[in-house]
Amino acid sequence: MARAVAVTGLYRNLPKAARDAFHDYLALNFLPESFRLKAAAEAYLAAPSAKTANELAVASASPRRELIRRLNIAPGATAVLVRMREYLLKDMRQRPQWMPLEQDLRDLFASWFNRGFLELRRIDWNTSAAILEKVIAYEAVHEIRGWDDLRRRLAVDRRCFAFFHPALPEEPLIFVEVALCRGLASSIEPLLRVGSPSDDIGKADTAIFYSISNCQPGLRGISFGNFLIKQVVEELRAELPGLKQFATLSPVPGFRGWLTKYLVGDNILPEKERDAIRMAADQAALGTHNPPAISLADAATKRVLLQLLATYLTDPNDGAGPQDSVARFHLGNGARLERLHWAANCSHRGIAESLGMMVNYLYEPSMIESNHEKFESLGKVAYSPDIADLLKNGPRDRSVTAPVKRFVRSRGLFQQSLPIVASAPPANAKQAIP
Amino acid sequence: MARAVAVTGLYRNLPKAARDAFHDYLALNFLPESFRLKAAAEAYLAAPSAKTANELAVASASPRRELIRRLNIAPGATAVLVRMREYLLKDMRQRPQWMPLEQDLRDLFASWFNRGFLELRRIDWNTSAAILEKVIAYEAVHEIRGWDDLRRRLAVDRRCFAFFHPALPEEPLIFVEVALCRGLASSIEPLLRVGSPSDDIGKADTAIFYSISNCQPGLRGISFGNFLIKQVVEELRAELPGLKQFATLSPVPGFRGWLTKYLVGDNILPEKERDAIRMAADQAALGTHNPPAISLADAATKRVLLQLLATYLTDPNDGAGPQDSVARFHLGNGARLERLHWAANCSHRGIAESLGMMVNYLYEPSMIESNHEKFESLGKVAYSPDIADLLKNGPRDRSVTAPVKRFVRSRGLFQQSLPIVASAPPANAKQAIP
Amino acid sequence: MARAVAVTGLYRNLPKAARDAFHDYLALNFLPESFRLKAAAEAYLAAPSAKTANELAVASASPRRELIRRLNIAPGATAVLVRMREYLLKDMRQRPQWMPLEQDLRDLFASWFNRGFLELRRIDWNTSAAILEKVIAYEAVHEIRGWDDLRRRLAVDRRCFAFFHPALPEEPLIFVEVALCRGLASSIEPLLRVGSPSDDIGKADTAIFYSISNCQPGLRGISFGNFLIKQVVEELRAELPGLKQFATLSPVPGFRGWLTKYLVGDNILPEKERDAIRMAADQAALGTHNPPAISLADAATKRVLLQLLATYLTDPNDGAGPQDSVARFHLGNGARLERLHWAANCSHRGIAESLGMMVNYLYEPSMIESNHEKFESLGKVAYSPDIADLLKNGPRDRSVTAPVKRFVRSRGLFQQSLPIVASAPPANAKQAIP
Amino acid sequence: MARAVAVTGLYRNLPKAARDAFHDYLALNFLPESFRLKAAAEAYLAAPSAKTANELAVASASPRRELIRRLNIAPGATAVLVRMREYLLKDMRQRPQWMPLEQDLRDLFASWFNRGFLELRRIDWNTSAAILEKVIAYEAVHEIRGWDDLRRRLAVDRRCFAFFHPALPEEPLIFVEVALCRGLASSIEPLLRVGSPSDDIGKADTAIFYSISNCQPGLRGISFGNFLIKQVVEELRAELPGLKQFATLSPVPGFRGWLTKYLVGDNILPEKERDAIRMAADQAALGTHNPPAISLADAATKRVLLQLLATYLTDPNDGAGPQDSVARFHLGNGARLERLHWAANCSHRGIAESLGMMVNYLYEPSMIESNHEKFESLGKVAYSPDIADLLKNGPRDRSVTAPVKRFVRSRGLFQQSLPIVASAPPANAKQAIP
Repeated sequence: MARAVAVTGLYRNLPKAARDAFHDYLALNFLPESFRLKAAAEAYLAAPSAKTANELAVASASPRRELIRRLNIAPGATAVLVRMREYLLKDMRQRPQWMPLEQDLRDLFASWFNRGFLELRRIDWNTSAAILEKVIAYEAVHEIRGWDDLRRRLAVDRRCFAFFHPALPEEPLIFVEVALCRGLASSIEPLLRVGSPSDDIGKADTAIFYSISNCQPGLRGISFGNFLIKQVVEELRAELPGLKQFATLSPVPGFRGWLTKYLVGDNILPEKERDAIRMAADQAALGTHNPPAISLADAATKRVLLQLLATYLTDPNDGAGPQDSVARFHLGNGARLERLHWAANCSHRGIAESLGMMVNYLYEPSMIESNHEKFESLGKVAYSPDIADLLKNGPRDRSVTAPVKRFVRSRGLFQQSLPIVASAPPANAKQAIP
Repeated sequence: MARAVAVTGLYRNLPKAARDAFHDYLALNFLPESFRLKAAAEAYLAAPSAKTANELAVASASPRRELIRRLNIAPGATAVLVRMREYLLKDMRQRPQWMPLEQDLRDLFASWFNRGFLELRRIDWNTSAAILEKVIAYEAVHEIRGWDDLRRRLAVDRRCFAFFHPALPEEPLIFVEVALCRGLASSIEPLLRVGSPSDDIGKADTAIFYSISNCQPGLRGISFGNFLIKQVVEELRAELPGLKQFATLSPVPGFRGWLTKYLVGDNILPEKERDAIRMAADQAALGTHNPPAISLADAATKRVLLQLLATYLTDPNDGAGPQDSVARFHLGNGARLERLHWAANCSHRGIAESLGMMVNYLYEPSMIESNHEKFESLGKVAYSPDIADLLKNGPRDRSVTAPVKRFVRSRGLFQQSLPIVASAPPANAKQAIP
Repeated sequence: MARAVAVTGLYRNLPKAARDAFHDYLALNFLPESFRLKAAAEAYLAAPSAKTANELAVASASPRRELIRRLNIAPGATAVLVRMREYLLKDMRQRPQWMPLEQDLRDLFASWFNRGFLELRRIDWNTSAAILEKVIAYEAVHEIRGWDDLRRRLAVDRRCFAFFHPALPEEPLIFVEVALCRGLASSIEPLLRVGSPSDDIGKADTAIFYSISNCQPGLRGISFGNFLIKQVVEELRAELPGLKQFATLSPVPGFRGWLTKYLVGDNILPEKERDAIRMAADQAALGTHNPPAISLADAATKRVLLQLLATYLTDPNDGAGPQDSVARFHLGNGARLERLHWAANCSHRGIAESLGMMVNYLYEPSMIESNHEKFESLGKVAYSPDIADLLKNGPRDRSVTAPVKRFVRSRGLFQQSLPIVASAPPANAKQAIP
Repeated sequence: MARAVAVTGLYRNLPKAARDAFHDYLALNFLPESFRLKAAAEAYLAAPSAKTANELAVASASPRRELIRRLNIAPGATAVLVRMREYLLKDMRQRPQWMPLEQDLRDLFASWFNRGFLELRRIDWNTSAAILEKVIAYEAVHEIRGWDDLRRRLAVDRRCFAFFHPALPEEPLIFVEVALCRGLASSIEPLLRVGSPSDDIGKADTAIFYSISNCQPGLRGISFGNFLIKQVVEELRAELPGLKQFATLSPVPGFRGWLTKYLVGDNILPEKERDAIRMAADQAALGTHNPPAISLADAATKRVLLQLLATYLTDPNDGAGPQDSVARFHLGNGARLERLHWAANCSHRGIAESLGMMVNYLYEPSMIESNHEKFESLGKVAYSPDIADLLKNGPRDRSVTAPVKRFVRSRGLFQQSLPIVASAPPANAKQAIP
């Protein structure tokens, strides 16, 4: 115990070089006993069976894992170990030798942070300032600009829930923000506006999940997001029987990048323009976003862009499913692609990611199971009749995208927003789902 | 989630045959992918390294473990899984094929029930009846005979502490009972007497740990007993600065068995008598215990028996240390063998186990570390000058044990108490430490 | 503060004589300033008005009350003051000079123990042993015989609720026990039987309040019983929407006494027999109760006794309402007299109080208000058609009671049970409602 | 209960005119029964005794009080009643007929908010935002400018404690802010500076109470401030045994007003100047404060002003004690006037109130009792040798104040700061002690 306290205390304050050396030390030592492991490997190869496989698993288990468990005895050690994995993940490309250590941590975390041990807590104005402050810091989708902004998001017509682990009692692991309203929300701005009056939740029929944020980079890949949404749906149903619909209002972070390639790859673009776009992507010039550009788009352009978005979000990709990370998260959870919205997020980031468009994914309890299975096994995306309609009339012939290119180029949309994508990722503590 | 709920719900009510079949199913399936495992085994054998060892560990990990983690999502599932391991352990001799399943559970439990996740709680009269009732049921050393008996053990001059896990909030995992008194307690009866007045704890200088019980057979081998004692020492020191000494009053469950062999092996016993003793051991006749027999022992006999006990408890056994399970537990924790007491537990069980003798193990914080290391590496037992004195004058010449044999035989001690040892172990839910 | 601690500490351990002297001291001193009080009295008499009345109230307020408030600052002082009033009430007849002190305490308690400050808590097997032990001690209607009995009363088909005050966190002030069943319970024995299996509460349509006990004699006259029942009705409705009926199964503590007088007063009794009954009442001989006597009653006797009971419980007494204390409590709360049960409580006490009969009072939310008002203003008792029927055919001609007398005399019911009524009231800590 | 809910619900939303009418109604009705009261008054006048005095008190008690107790049954009613008294106090001058109602509320509050029922809670960053927000709003001495300011005041080298009542669980009644430092703090600015690093509390030997705020105007005159300070002293001693000194850093809100009169009353001032100062006092012109003016004061002026301050704060006023409200509060609690500080609060308000000077009052446990008694009975102020020294050499001859007048006039201190005093009192919710 005393040693666990000493080691974790030291580690907390180690300068980077020493820390890296410590990682090396942990990763390269604490190997399983080679004599015994060789024997087990040979026995398995000679006669593969449940028994020899199990004996091989036992013989190959690294004593490092037991070491980590013992470190975890020290008060506060779990937080230190989560931080350790965060460091490892950040530099793993340069330090592939850390893999065994990272994998041991990941495996332990998968056990420790098992959903069965997590506690769902409502976050509201009665929550401690210490935790609320972290919600402000960890919000990764729509930045919270101070306490007034936060307060609006915790008002009577909003809900916020987080998962906590008993060993990290003041650290949310993931949280979701929900707006209670009538019908599917079609734009993010009204939901976030500070000072807007609260709606009468007695009349609300829809819960809109408008932001989900993972809080701990060191827990990357240990998934609880899907459990969170489903359990919050249950909580809300119990509290507000008037709610009939549970859906997200989600960004499409990958659309603009995909569109760029799509347009570029399209050979009708002359080389000169392609070069211009590439250059733009490299520029670091920061422009302010320009909502009028979006609102000025003519109906045809708007239609084509929505069709392209539908195409992007439903592309089966030979069974792998669409590439957009947010889409994969919700579709993988069994949600259905429900509706696309034009000019739904005209913030700088909204324009940069998806030309201001946003998406509703619908969580319809009776369909979740089958949606999930079709998606997982075949990459098949469930979508609503609205989307079907868009797709049916969508740009099969790529020439139809010409007006889009003209619009995009004329408004300088790429130029003004690409630098954001090229710039640094959001602060380490923040990870938008997934 | 729905499936996890269904499976754990079903399992709870499965009849034994179906349950065994389910265990077989889990143990014999869910093997790692053989193609990949073979490749990893060969790669390791060809070039053993941190990297190939790690890859072999990953390839040999059974998908069963992930399955168990998913089952654990269901509410109450952790308790079901602990119960499953209890079933496995009970029948493992007859069903060695369950080993892989048992080992996966054990490995997961070692992570889940890591000391870092356990909560120390004081048990007292403000504890819920639901938990107190379990303390009554789980006590494994000195049976608790109803609520009045319990109440005395939770009076102002007593303490009781238990470890709990957040996923089993109403289930103590292990608990310890402590008496606060002046000097080392030399007899268990006064500590347990219902209705005895409480001592003034302002005058107490010694905390006596007189009972430790593991509560969950399904967690066998996942050790927290050593942490419990050490943390309780810290709690008590903080609460009562007047405490100067922390020690146990412990049984010696193996002494009578060892003594039998010792005496039998001793060739001065004529064959006829040896046979008589063997027969006695096989008899099932239940006698009531006979405290006067012990109190009638003459000083020489008493002295020799204490010397033999000291010998038993300090025997290095070629580096393995003494065989007594309770001794191994405390000595392994770094305690010191402090004092032996004659006629300290004249209950039927006390006579049967150790002819009524009991032992103090002293937890002296400054020596714990070095005691522990000498014991672990060399089997060397730390003991007090009192014990050293006993040993110095102990029965080197085995003939000196003749009076003991006479005493033992004339009092019929073996005959009356052996059946207990030969009889069934205590009820499954109860495990005296270790 | 220091003085408050000292005084309340001293008081706790004062022998009776000194305590009485202290009561005298408090009661006879701390008078309002006489000069000012006289002036205010004269001013009021000269010109009575809201203003002079208020000034008189202010001038007559005793500084004793402020003294008591200051004593209450000490930790645990509230319990001491409640105990003080208990002592005062016990000896007030002999010590009428204590009245001012008792009245100040009562007035303060009426403020302190205002319903708005009480907390309703469910009592169940998760409640601390310290509180459960008090429930056992305080039960005043149907004695709780140990922990097994208690456990049955807290099983899944039972509920128990108590009011607590923040300054007495471990002291229930009043508690009620409820059984969940189908239809109105007609006998107490099945509800109390230890070891009886729990009913399926999914099928329960009726909540039977079968015991209410005040716990603090020092709070006599500070009423919370009516709030308790009504709030528990709300709690149960919220938890179990299947419940359609809320009623009591109540004793009739005053019936046997009334019956005695009724029969004696009835001039058809010859003098000799009247004397015999009076003598019986003076006897101290304790008989065991005799259930068969009750069960042997012929139908006519049974009918007449039920009719007499209905008469007793509905007698308007010239606007004052029936005399039975339990009846007054429930009828005053707005309940309706619903049904009478023969052989419903054949315990010694049940026979002694009401020849084994019990009563259901029905709490029908929609009628509570009007029932309550008719009772309070006119002494008019609300009753069901069943009761109306009994009354219509009841013993107008007193000669009809002759069979009852014969039955009562022949079974020796008076003789065996009167001593109980003549004997001491139940232990001080226990007060059946009211 | 239903009516209590209805009435308190209505009252909450009553417009002012209706509310005033309701107050009239409550105050002028609900008189004690006049027949009985007259009889009791006459009986008392005829024969004054403990008994007749008590009977008069009972007869004069207004049924209004019972009415208020019944209103208090409704959830949230206590808050409504506290608010009612706030309204009454605000307009009592214009509505003296409300006195009986106000007095009944005050008397009930004195019982309800008895110190014995209050809970001391630490306020820190783990406190809920809902409560912290109220701390920001209620701070009455040194305004809290937002969450960053608050956070500094709750950092590791600060403490904040509040009293709460169980019926107002989210409403602090009074709170105190404490800085842990070395030696007596001599200036407020360093304590409040946002972003200043935290001190090492291991080295702190002094706790400085730098702000106490009453939160509920409706509880005016129900005192808990003295209990708060003394209990916080106990808490801090238990937590930090290194603390040796407990003192305030307090404003002197009345000094400037007193000084004005002192200087004006002093006949050496020619009439013309006196008029100028009076005029200044009437002006509403707002100047910004001018710290350099204070810092430019020459040593002689500074000395004289400190001497005048000492005179002001120790003036026995013929046994009534000094007039300054803050001084009366701390001296009445038994504190000692310890030290005066020049340029200790150069904020606008600090200059306006006391020309920037502040004061330490020392809470020395061993002297509190005797200080308190001398102050209460004789108006005698306890002070340190430092203060004694100032007083000894103070301005006996009033001509010595001439330099002060010159300084004050030349710096325009009166002109710039008087308007503040002439302006509205701080917002209703805030009341600096007392």
